[in-house]
Amino acid sequence: MANLTPLMDNEVLKAFGSYTTIILAKMMFMSTATAFFRLTKKVFANPEDAASFGKGENAKKYLRSDESVERVRRAHLNDLENIVPFLGIGLLYSLSGPDLSTALLHFRIFVGARIYHTMAYLLPLPQPNRGLAFFVGFGVTLSMAYSLLRNKLYL
Amino acid sequence: MANLTPLMDNEVLKAFGSYTTIILAKMMFMSTATAFFRLTKKVFANPEDAASFGKGENAKKYLRSDESVERVRRAHLNDLENIVPFLGIGLLYSLSGPDLSTALLHFRIFVGARIYHTMAYLLPLPQPNRGLAFFVGFGVTLSMAYSLLRNKLYL
Amino acid sequence: MANLTPLMDNEVLKAFGSYTTIILAKMMFMSTATAFFRLTKKVFANPEDAASFGKGENAKKYLRSDESVERVRRAHLNDLENIVPFLGIGLLYSLSGPDLSTALLHFRIFVGARIYHTMAYLLPLPQPNRGLAFFVGFGVTLSMAYSLLRNKLYL
Repeated sequence: MANLTPLMDNEVLKAFGSYTTIILAKMMFMSTATAFFRLTKKVFANPEDAASFGKGENAKKYLRSDESVERVRRAHLNDLENIVPFLGIGLLYSLSGPDLSTALLHFRIFVGARIYHTMAYLLPLPQPNRGLAFFVGFGVTLSMAYSLLRNKLYL
Repeated sequence: MANLTPLMDNEVLKAFGSYTTIILAKMMFMSTATAFFRLTKKVFANPEDAASFGKGENAKKYLRSDESVERVRRAHLNDLENIVPFLGIGLLYSLSGPDLSTALLHFRIFVGARIYHTMAYLLPLPQPNRGLAFFVGFGVTLSMAYSLLRNKLYL
Repeated sequence: MANLTPLMDNEVLKAFGSYTTIILAKMMFMSTATAFFRLTKKVFANPEDAASFGKGENAKKYLRSDESVERVRRAHLNDLENIVPFLGIGLLYSLSGPDLSTALLHFRIFVGARIYHTMAYLLPLPQPNRGLAFFVGFGVTLSMAYSLLRNKLYL
């Protein structure tokens, strides 16, 4: 097998790997939160999911939507919409040889902002808590994109 | 052009590339499945899409939702929610120099579980078929995340 | 820090990085478009978002859905569904050592098609403008997937 040691010895890439794994694991937790609310509140989208709670007409009443479930699903989708750009832009930024302390600052603020965003969405906290968390994460990704396009633009 | 041969000669990365391409192509198939159901059942979300099936009030009746279309869309969104973490964590895991046979085991189980999940969602199969497929794929991604954070944590 | 110069000196990867950053920044713009329509049309999904526009029953009337907001959200989700495969397959394709001019052709057509898709969705343009833009981007990703699986299949 080829030796990839030089690649993963790169400290920026190691840091990107750690923060990415943490924020993706947090995003995966949203799936279990949805499943938890669906099961405890008996709120299902598919007839086969409701089948174990009753038969025929009795099961149909569980095919409904619920505000707690929809809230988790909106938070999950917002995660997807923001973590996907962070993944793509962050990986390329990490490969572009940024300063380690600058890169760490970007990764830490992004991960902190997204964790705060989830808390603000699920508790929920009054606005502008969630809005600010969103824009901080958004700004971090844009800052990495700007750094990439300024130094490495190749069209 | 720089020589990337050492990178793509890495067998774990080659395997990750193959399994990722297969599972992303499967996910792309969900778009065509949605389009197929929208066209055959005449169920549209946008007025301009319904326009070729009638004019004015006649077209408006096609702006509705349908259970087959919503089912494909839920399966598609579930794919996105699970394949995005696999992409990010799997790539970093592949770069972290895991054992080839362990890595192949992770990739094969994940791809198999997600293909089974799609089948269980679209046919549909009774629960817990879909639930189990979901948790197997989920567990594979968590296992790679754990391996990454244990060996390479850098915060 | 390890020297990654050979990696980012690779012209295909530099081009992939530039086009990816552009298309992800475009996707991020969809979030701000949603926020813009939500604020100008006073259409909210969460009670805490509507709270600054009124209290109690007065705020509840803003918890509704609106066609402009839903349109941007559908365009955003379609972006996610198509840009995620491009990210994963495109990165692996870039690492597989393709011809520079062929790779540039793929990246340029994809980015152009997705920008046109957004314009066709938001203006909106009559069909088949949006449908064609979708299938051009879809075809580019499939073409890269085919090239990857033909040359580098490793299962």
